Amino acid sequence: MIRDAYAVRTGIGPRPLAGGRYPRPVIEVIERDDGLINGAPADHYLDEPQDWPPYDHRAMRLCRGRVLDIGVGAGRCAIELQRRGIAVTGLDTSLGAIEVARKRGLRDTVLNTVDEFSRAAVRYDTFLLLGNNLGLLESPERAPVLLAGLSRLAAPGARIVAQGSDPYGTRDPVHVAYHERNRQRGRLGGQLRLRLRYREIASDWFDYLNCSVAELEGLLAGTGWRLKSIDEQDRPYYLAVMEQDT
Amino acid sequence: MIRDAYAVRTGIGPRPLAGGRYPRPVIEVIERDDGLINGAPADHYLDEPQDWPPYDHRAMRLCRGRVLDIGVGAGRCAIELQRRGIAVTGLDTSLGAIEVARKRGLRDTVLNTVDEFSRAAVRYDTFLLLGNNLGLLESPERAPVLLAGLSRLAAPGARIVAQGSDPYGTRDPVHVAYHERNRQRGRLGGQLRLRLRYREIASDWFDYLNCSVAELEGLLAGTGWRLKSIDEQDRPYYLAVMEQDT
Repeated sequence: MIRDAYAVRTGIGPRPLAGGRYPRPVIEVIERDDGLINGAPADHYLDEPQDWPPYDHRAMRLCRGRVLDIGVGAGRCAIELQRRGIAVTGLDTSLGAIEVARKRGLRDTVLNTVDEFSRAAVRYDTFLLLGNNLGLLESPERAPVLLAGLSRLAAPGARIVAQGSDPYGTRDPVHVAYHERNRQRGRLGGQLRLRLRYREIASDWFDYLNCSVAELEGLLAGTGWRLKSIDEQDRPYYLAVMEQDT
Repeated sequence: MIRDAYAVRTGIGPRPLAGGRYPRPVIEVIERDDGLINGAPADHYLDEPQDWPPYDHRAMRLCRGRVLDIGVGAGRCAIELQRRGIAVTGLDTSLGAIEVARKRGLRDTVLNTVDEFSRAAVRYDTFLLLGNNLGLLESPERAPVLLAGLSRLAAPGARIVAQGSDPYGTRDPVHVAYHERNRQRGRLGGQLRLRLRYREIASDWFDYLNCSVAELEGLLAGTGWRLKSIDEQDRPYYLAVMEQDT
């Protein structure tokens, strides 16, 4: 999907066509396990800084030292960090995403999961999770495992800079009912069960966590990470900075 | 969905928002029974004539007398016919579509199926099926039933003006395999099994027929309709004019 979005934006490579002649928009389909489905144009993965939401710009300024961009996608933010002279590695589980990020100029990339990569003998000062990727904490069960992986990769004084979404401000009955159903099943309200679809490809179902700041603090307990600061200027979206206990 | 697309385009009515603040694009999700999924921006249902594909303009000139626009949607083509002083009725099974078409100025609308409406004591000179709505023939079993409904609604000398798509020019292995699978099951190759999804709403699964001109001629046999002309200037898309046997 990111390869197709890159071809449409740049004209490099075969562009998706309808009926062999009309450009077909590249749209990511996000399906939730209650049947809610959303299409989102994939072009935003390639947005230049002038088109970013404001919190992404503020996130850049929270980075320190060597940065690991987790879920780097098409390299949107990592390429900007690199341009600023910051040492940044882009990690993603998607080969297509890594290929596009490299074509766009990102030099240091890793095709891997955090769990596998955390056995490597490298250390980072900042773990960056943008594009709502605080959601990669997934669940109360998964969060400590991911955070332990980051601990193994952490240089002394390392921080996590993550963008999250507080899901509980909505009055949309579809979302309110989903949160309630989740709680009845012993899940966090915003613990989304999703899969991504593009053309004939469908991901497996996975958990993706939209949590409140209070829930995030609860998830951090006992992990060696603690909340350092929260930027809630663009609610319901927020930036969380987490640091290791000293 | 069409209500939301109308709100986004005009600013009239509540617009869909992500996180309660960012505009959410209105995207129609089209799911095929082999797992292929496509998202398509719904905004095209509201396109003004200058944004139409060229064959829609040529279809306008094929209309004669009183027109029934079948699957009128947001009234894209019917409103243009009305503007030209042509007597046009817009029929759709979607209440939201009819509401938007009326808000945009279409005066004569019917919320109904062709089958039900064909019992009414009205007669038309042209049946218009644009936006690929030749697909409403559905299947070899369904096509004669729909065509019989149109026969009941037909004034002497009536015609059908329909836009179709020949699906067989593709070399996309996903589509080629789908056509082959269909044939093995006794279906026409381009007899798509689809459902439409938007947010929490999903249609039932239905057949939608992309057929070649030769297949169309086969479907017409014995229905009282025959192929009068074909416009294939914009292959794989075509305009078919059908008239009643005399």
